[in-house]
Amino acid sequence: MLSEFQRILIAHRFTKEKALQCAEIFTNNSIDGVYTHGVNRFATFIKMVDEGFVKPNNTPSLKSKNAGIEQWDGNLGAGPLNAMHATDTAINLSQQFGIGCVALSNTNHWMRGGAYGWHAAKKGFVFIGWTNTIGLMPAWGATDNRLGNNPFVIGVPFNDEAIVLDMAMSQYSFGKMELAKIKDEMLPVVGGYNTSGELTNDPTEIIKSKRPLPIGYWKGAGLSLLLDILATILSGGLSTKEISKKKVEAGLSQVFIAIDISRLANHSSIPNLIDSIINDYHQSATQDERTNIMYPGERVLKTRKNNLVSGIPVIKTIWEEILQL
Amino acid sequence: MLSEFQRILIAHRFTKEKALQCAEIFTNNSIDGVYTHGVNRFATFIKMVDEGFVKPNNTPSLKSKNAGIEQWDGNLGAGPLNAMHATDTAINLSQQFGIGCVALSNTNHWMRGGAYGWHAAKKGFVFIGWTNTIGLMPAWGATDNRLGNNPFVIGVPFNDEAIVLDMAMSQYSFGKMELAKIKDEMLPVVGGYNTSGELTNDPTEIIKSKRPLPIGYWKGAGLSLLLDILATILSGGLSTKEISKKKVEAGLSQVFIAIDISRLANHSSIPNLIDSIINDYHQSATQDERTNIMYPGERVLKTRKNNLVSGIPVIKTIWEEILQL
Repeated sequence: MLSEFQRILIAHRFTKEKALQCAEIFTNNSIDGVYTHGVNRFATFIKMVDEGFVKPNNTPSLKSKNAGIEQWDGNLGAGPLNAMHATDTAINLSQQFGIGCVALSNTNHWMRGGAYGWHAAKKGFVFIGWTNTIGLMPAWGATDNRLGNNPFVIGVPFNDEAIVLDMAMSQYSFGKMELAKIKDEMLPVVGGYNTSGELTNDPTEIIKSKRPLPIGYWKGAGLSLLLDILATILSGGLSTKEISKKKVEAGLSQVFIAIDISRLANHSSIPNLIDSIINDYHQSATQDERTNIMYPGERVLKTRKNNLVSGIPVIKTIWEEILQL
Repeated sequence: MLSEFQRILIAHRFTKEKALQCAEIFTNNSIDGVYTHGVNRFATFIKMVDEGFVKPNNTPSLKSKNAGIEQWDGNLGAGPLNAMHATDTAINLSQQFGIGCVALSNTNHWMRGGAYGWHAAKKGFVFIGWTNTIGLMPAWGATDNRLGNNPFVIGVPFNDEAIVLDMAMSQYSFGKMELAKIKDEMLPVVGGYNTSGELTNDPTEIIKSKRPLPIGYWKGAGLSLLLDILATILSGGLSTKEISKKKVEAGLSQVFIAIDISRLANHSSIPNLIDSIINDYHQSATQDERTNIMYPGERVLKTRKNNLVSGIPVIKTIWEEILQL
């Protein structure tokens, strides 16, 4: 998969180095089981390149700097490359200032936000980051989609691996709802409204109404709004409102915060503190003894292990389409 | 209310200055309509002082410093005073380093997290903060309460006032559910499980099962866990697990991040960026034209205005109890 992605990216005007880095991100997302933002999204990404929305040779440029906070322009380069650059820059800032923040404007879809959380956490840094998106979700009480689902990521180093929370502000993505619809399945919990404005777990109804549910109803709607405001003002970039005016989702605003925990006075005790919390969490009582209580990122580790042994499962038609690129 | 609170705090060993500052926070929370963490909580706070859990004369002390990030020990002083001190310290750090972070261990309940968001934002700073709590909520799939509801706050300056999101990770607080139970009302949306493990919006059933629902089901549970981990490792303080072993909720861990937006290159355009987002948000279409689409903190402004004109409404028995303190 890696070499195939690299071949295609080079054929679509990426430099050899950029092609490798970008191919690695798409492949790792797939190894980790996030196929929607890995192999299943690759052809769409190439289409964005071909249509000129993603500029393969553009790199981010520094707009302004104020000690531990920097503003960068993504120059509409590849979202994953820009985001990885911003993550590494935030890490460097945190090594200098304890905490570092990069606000990135004018970038593109970062694919899987968790990738940057894993990257920073595996290097030993705490990571907090988020992106805005096109309007996908209504404000609380509203019927039209003026809020992004604005994925929010927290990464923490843990046992040479990481604990990584990667969550959008909608209960389900449209991708998940489309999949449930195709399989003729109901969603496990309510995921939005039907066209009469009633809550439902029928994906077909929600796709029809275009009213997915924010996590926690009014709470997730509020958090989505604030994440958009912060990404916009800190980067000086486009808000969900402005992005939604475009034909395609491009020119996003993102925030990357890193904290250098290696220089905290209590550094040596941190692994034990996390161990103790996770051990307690794992001992949770359950109604059904077959229930596994898993921390964010724990399932990823299992999937990664399986996929590294057995290969990455791909949908045949999707892989064949990729081979044609 | 302010002078009454001040009188009582002085009678309970607070210095005149500390009594005024603490009385102001409790009074402002009440003016803003957050009675549960204002007037309705004041007697409990005094009880915590009398029982020795809150030390009225203790002030926070610096444990360690690494440029923009500082660790402080709250020395079990009054939670609101410690939190306000940490907020001001994070603001000072952000003026020096662009972004500043204070991690506070060994503190007490900060009452209303929004107070610190409003405080920082009204001074012109972006604020991101959170606290851990005693275990109140089960992990996703679990039946026992090993997660805190860990309120999370974001504040942003807006029109000489602020946009402030102040949200706990549980859909409803036990306080809200108790109130609904007393009024014999159902919760507007599902708020937890009954003792058979089924989702319900009956507050009596949820109080019985002690299984409130995290916002967004697995998502809010994951966010709660990560906020506890971050508060614990950054401050070197106690986790929800350790706090839950105690008789009362004391010795909390908190994080306060401030960003000095006045020194960003795009500073002068920020008010317009926020205006534009909020204007768009307010124009949301609604099913029922009487629905008001409000941003986080907007209702607070209305309540504040009303209460400043008409006085703070108090429950007679609660106010009489306070007068006896």
